Amino acid sequence: MKLDIALIHYPVCNKKQEIIGSAVTNLDIHDIARAGKTYGVNNFYIVTPFADQQKLVGEIIEHWRHGYGARYNNDRREAFSIIKVCERLEDLYDEYTRSDLPRPLTLATSARDVAQKQIPYEVLRQRLADGEHCLILFGTGWGLAPEVIADVDAFLPPVGGGMTYNHLSVRSACAIILDRLLSER
Amino acid sequence: MKLDIALIHYPVCNKKQEIIGSAVTNLDIHDIARAGKTYGVNNFYIVTPFADQQKLVGEIIEHWRHGYGARYNNDRREAFSIIKVCERLEDLYDEYTRSDLPRPLTLATSARDVAQKQIPYEVLRQRLADGEHCLILFGTGWGLAPEVIADVDAFLPPVGGGMTYNHLSVRSACAIILDRLLSER
Repeated sequence: MKLDIALIHYPVCNKKQEIIGSAVTNLDIHDIARAGKTYGVNNFYIVTPFADQQKLVGEIIEHWRHGYGARYNNDRREAFSIIKVCERLEDLYDEYTRSDLPRPLTLATSARDVAQKQIPYEVLRQRLADGEHCLILFGTGWGLAPEVIADVDAFLPPVGGGMTYNHLSVRSACAIILDRLLSER
Repeated sequence: MKLDIALIHYPVCNKKQEIIGSAVTNLDIHDIARAGKTYGVNNFYIVTPFADQQKLVGEIIEHWRHGYGARYNNDRREAFSIIKVCERLEDLYDEYTRSDLPRPLTLATSARDVAQKQIPYEVLRQRLADGEHCLILFGTGWGLAPEVIADVDAFLPPVGGGMTYNHLSVRSACAIILDRLLSER
């Protein structure tokens, strides 16, 4: 199974649909790394162009991989082993090229229903089971910027309970999507 | 659909399997309320016997229901509308009795596989769809204390990807479980 996930902090939208860079949330790192490791994700990329944020994430990762955190909680050390920090999404795409890999099938996630180019969960589940390399992008703030969305191969349908209300945290949405794609059956 | 969920802060286990009371985590409240509202949960009970913790949770709830938070983010106000604070699990059970309701089918969750009295997700999904009133208990720290587990009607199987590693946050586990039981199909 070859699945990478990326948590995008720039470019994303704010509440007014303006393009912003969001701050990294500590519990996003923990929860998504733990869910990623639990479901067998290969790499969890944290994408932020801000040097101070990269430094902060680097320090958090260091604490749980090699510092006191690693000795206190070995499970957390394992979860953090899948994290990589990345300046821009383009750098991530370039990293595949440098490794002589084709760009994986790249999917955007959104709480809004984008009718075009949707791949149902069962279909993507099968493609992953068949060994296809995929990359799923998760937005922070109020979601991925249009320029990111314009450049993906396909969309995953929004998750939820079919209610009018649909406001999951990115941590919850990511956990649910991994479960739909990779749960033990 | 009649589903209540409860996040238990006492009695739970610590890393050494000793019985402790855990501190309330702010993002547990937000993430589980948002997931609860997204999937149509009736009540989200936060169970803590500590007066200072009840006060803290009360202030957080007030901020998002009636304070600046409610004006800034109406979605969060709606999510927080399902939260109730409860001193002890027994009080919660008593509340049903006071409302002339039978105690709901009460289920424990755990990352460990408890072979006895397990209800598969598809079965509970159908029972909820048929209108049966259920209550799902989520533990904090290293999980629900034995005395809580001894008193439930049944267990939900652990969620995960069938890997050796299985260390989801309670926020992630709760989101996944609600999706398995209540996702739109």
